[in-house]
Amino acid sequence: MDKFMQAAIDEAKKGLEEGGVPIGSVIVHNGEIIGRGHNRRVQSGSPILHGEMDAFADAGRQPASVYKECVIYTTLSPCTMCSGAIELYGIPHVVVGENQTFMGAEGRLRQLGVKVDVLQDATCIDLMNTFIRNHPELWDEDIGKS
Amino acid sequence: MDKFMQAAIDEAKKGLEEGGVPIGSVIVHNGEIIGRGHNRRVQSGSPILHGEMDAFADAGRQPASVYKECVIYTTLSPCTMCSGAIELYGIPHVVVGENQTFMGAEGRLRQLGVKVDVLQDATCIDLMNTFIRNHPELWDEDIGKS
Repeated sequence: MDKFMQAAIDEAKKGLEEGGVPIGSVIVHNGEIIGRGHNRRVQSGSPILHGEMDAFADAGRQPASVYKECVIYTTLSPCTMCSGAIELYGIPHVVVGENQTFMGAEGRLRQLGVKVDVLQDATCIDLMNTFIRNHPELWDEDIGKS
Repeated sequence: MDKFMQAAIDEAKKGLEEGGVPIGSVIVHNGEIIGRGHNRRVQSGSPILHGEMDAFADAGRQPASVYKECVIYTTLSPCTMCSGAIELYGIPHVVVGENQTFMGAEGRLRQLGVKVDVLQDATCIDLMNTFIRNHPELWDEDIGKS
């Protein structure tokens, strides 16, 4: 397992332990994690703290010169909000744990020239399948469906 | 002046007084403001707290049935991140103070069927023109340009 995807999975599991949606993310610059986070909808009562957004917040204010050398790892395909943040800050490379349980705006990112790798990682898929089965209403809320 | 755009402008001015980027937003449901906020890049050191995102955070967790009846007011054309949040939560109507100093992802929103009204409000334009003249580096950072 790639150590950065493992760090994103560790974040997702931390979120699950806190009673939250198990999606995690890390932002990597020159081989170092500069931001890490997980979905905090439940924990913070926030609709904007998806895993990727929480990682951006943790990385803090960065110049464009840093963002353009970053890779963002996320356990789940990034939704339109998170993809929009990736687009805004010009992150050139996204590594996605899986897109089987939810397909985000990957196609849009690829059209913009962003490199998107999808691992279809069994742990990521299992985390989401189990969560969606146990908390369908929370999951639908997180993606604006209910 | 529409009272809701006035409330968004009040938020933008509050941000300016705090030393921040003067962009404000309110989310309105059935004629009542359910979320309000302003850009907090400087105040919170956060790259994700654009005005619209701060208003979403302030509104808290809402069901899709509420979002689909909301109007979001923002003093400036919404960037890809904020437009992505508007898309995720299915907000059907966006009222924009101005898009002369910055053109966001309005076109994308319209293509998705979102109603986008642009007021080209003189106060909104002046707030941004003055801010960009005084803090060009901060503005470029806020839109991922430097």
